[in-house]
Parts: sequence; structure tokens; C-alpha cells
Amino acid sequence: MFEWLFGRRRRAKAPVLGSRLDSIGAADRIDLSDLTPDLVSFLGQTAYLELAVFQSLSRVVAEAPNLAIKEGISVVAGEALAKHQGMVAELRKKKVDPAMAMQPFTQAIDRFEILTRGRDWYETLLGIYITAGFLDDFFARLVTGLPRTVAARVSEVLTTAGSDRVIIAALREGMEADPDLGARLALWGRRLVGDTQLVARSAIAASDTAEGIHRRIEPVFTDLLGAHSRRMDELGLTA
Amino acid sequence: MFEWLFGRRRRAKAPVLGSRLDSIGAADRIDLSDLTPDLVSFLGQTAYLELAVFQSLSRVVAEAPNLAIKEGISVVAGEALAKHQGMVAELRKKKVDPAMAMQPFTQAIDRFEILTRGRDWYETLLGIYITAGFLDDFFARLVTGLPRTVAARVSEVLTTAGSDRVIIAALREGMEADPDLGARLALWGRRLVGDTQLVARSAIAASDTAEGIHRRIEPVFTDLLGAHSRRMDELGLTA
Repeated sequence: MFEWLFGRRRRAKAPVLGSRLDSIGAADRIDLSDLTPDLVSFLGQTAYLELAVFQSLSRVVAEAPNLAIKEGISVVAGEALAKHQGMVAELRKKKVDPAMAMQPFTQAIDRFEILTRGRDWYETLLGIYITAGFLDDFFARLVTGLPRTVAARVSEVLTTAGSDRVIIAALREGMEADPDLGARLALWGRRLVGDTQLVARSAIAASDTAEGIHRRIEPVFTDLLGAHSRRMDELGLTA
Repeated sequence: MFEWLFGRRRRAKAPVLGSRLDSIGAADRIDLSDLTPDLVSFLGQTAYLELAVFQSLSRVVAEAPNLAIKEGISVVAGEALAKHQGMVAELRKKKVDPAMAMQPFTQAIDRFEILTRGRDWYETLLGIYITAGFLDDFFARLVTGLPRTVAARVSEVLTTAGSDRVIIAALREGMEADPDLGARLALWGRRLVGDTQLVARSAIAASDTAEGIHRRIEPVFTDLLGAHSRRMDELGLTA
């Protein structure tokens, strides 16, 4: 399904954010548990996603504009790695080989990762920040469908507060130095959030008709877009 | 001094390992404390070294030949990052800006890092393993010259056992698949260890004549070369 949705990506329309933000909070009442992938798929998918985020952030660390930012972003890279390791630990508890569990998701996530690479260091950093934030939030919503013993631990891994302020400071520094960067980043953020929603949708179990899934997932996306807008706001950017 | 020694690198001769291995253990009796750099230099240097090791390992993760190895090496990358963060934490305790403390050492360590990049993935992995192992051991020896309150914590950070077996398994796998790789890695390891000793020597405080330093540091190097030989042995390679 991941593959199928990636194939359709180019035809997708960007969501109209403004009209949906009124209903923030409605998503809390919606039970998504039957859309949660089976445990091994959930863990394999999130484990590889976090590994990909770690790799992207490592590249950002390597190319950081100065040493203070390099040091700061390395902390964020470590946080993504810790999330990956948290998911791997759960797979090992289930006696599942992490590589086997991640394998089905590598191609689609690698392709998505390439999509999030921007034209420069700042766009790439924003890309990782925005997409990883959205997808972490999204998977955290699906946790309710996991076996109860695992759900609490997985939820904690996904929702642990990271060093966002380091990223925000680095992006703000860039925007102060280059007056054109803000406008570019705003556009880039809008483009990414559309692709990210398609990745999120492709991650769920297909237990309903396409229309049924669409109807139930939309309020959740509305909610997650609210969080996305707050991230952009903190950067002084319009989502 | 770092700069100066790097400038002389090309003229350095490879050490004759065999003749020195008899005296392993003698180094334990030698007090190097007056060769220990001041605390901020020590921490800045090791913090940046571990950050560089982390970056190198992240590249190795990104280019890993398969997903199991990728996952395994990401753990080792996390361990290097944790060492970096341990040193940064000590700098912060002293109210020293980590970036400022690391800055004097970036150029030389970056240049050394480029030297350790091999012709392929396996050479690069061996390069990181061999040089980081040697330098961690070396800095751990200099800890005795640090203020006592800091020394114990720094020593623990540097000597924490890492996931070496993951690296060993990956290199062994490569050597099984390619009969020529072992000979190449043996040569590569010998070349690296000469450069690594020059980096180590450039890291110490110049509190003695060059001849005096040489005389005192040699038994320590002999000891560290013993550990190096054991690392190579575990790979089935002759040091």
C-alpha cells in the first residue's frame, strides 16, 4: 500500500489548512485502533523511520554552518537514534529480527527521505523537523491499536520531548542572516506537509474502504496540522 | 603544536610493532600527569574527537551494505555520540561554551578524519575502529593529570565498553565475501596506526623537551599498540 500511494503522490493536492483548523481536538474522540498496523509492521516501520531521521540529521550535523549548531543538532540526532533503538528493543523482546521487520519499509521511506532534502542546509533541516514531527505525532495516535503492554512504552518513545529549540534557533539564525530564507522555508514547509500526509496514510492498515478511511483519518490530520502550524509559527512562518 | 605535527606527518616512519610488544605493562608505572593538557583543552579535544567519530560512523551507517549491519553500526555511532555528550556535559559544568572549547582542535581532527577514510566501506570502518580505539585508550591514560573530581567521570566516559563485536562481525562478513579484503585491511591498519600515534603525540602538553616527551611516551604507545594488535587479531589480521 505504501508503494501504491507513493505512485500516486504527484497527483495529490495540497490540503487547505485554514478551513480545517477550526476542528482541532475533534480527533481525540476518534478511535483509530483498527487502522493500526500489526505490531511488527508498526515497530518495523517506526524503527526504520527513526533510523532514516537519524541519518538525515547526521548529514545535517556534518554540514552544519558552525560548531555550536553542529553540537546542538548532534543532540537531536541522538534523540532520533534513541527512538530507533526503543523500537528495536521492542522487536527484540518479541524475538523479531529488527532488520527483517524494517525491510518492507525501507524503499518507501528512503524515497520519502530524498523528497525531504531541500536546496540547502536550512531547507533540509526544516524538512526533517516538519516531517519527523508530523509522523511521530501520527504514529503516536495509532498506538491505541497496539497490545496494551507495548503501547505505553512505544507511546513514551514517540512522544518524548526533543531538543526542538536547537533546531528553531538554527533556523532563526539562518533567517536573520538571509532575508529571503523565510519565504523559501514557508513554501517548502507547505510542500512537505502534503507529501507527509500521504506517507502517514500509506502507513495505516487497510481495514476499511478508501472512503471510510479517508472520512476517519481526516479529523486526525486536521489535528496534526494544528501541531504543524504551531511548529511553523514558532519559526515565524505561516503554515 | 597539533598543526606542527600534522605538517611533519609524511616524514614519519611506521613503528616496528613486534619489538615493542615484550614490554606491555611497563606503561602503567609511568606518570604522564604533567603531559595532560589543561582541563578545557582536554575536554574540547576529546569532545570534538568523539563528534568526528560519530560523524564518520554516521556515514558508515548511511552506506552500510545491509540493513542488519546498518542497524548494528548505528548503535556504535550512538556510543560515540554519548562520549561526545559526556565531554560536553563536563564543559558545561565548568561554564565553558563547548563550541569555543572544541574550536582549536577542529582543523587538525577534521584533517585526520579525512586521512582515515579508506578506499571502500570496509577500510573506512576499520579506520574508525582502529583510530578511535587507540585515541580513546590514549586519552584515558592522560586522565590522571586532570583534577580529581573530573577525572573519574571522564575516565568512565572514555573507557565504557562499546559494541565492538558489531564492527568485528561486519568486517569478518566482508572478508568472507571477498578473499582479497583481509590483506588490504591488514595493510590499511598498519598505515593508520602510524598516523594515529602522531595525532596522540600532538595532543599532549609540551611541558618537557621533545626528547623527554618521546622517552616517556614511548612505553605508553607500546602498551596501546598491544591493544591495537589485539583488535587486529580479533579480525584475524596481523598488526
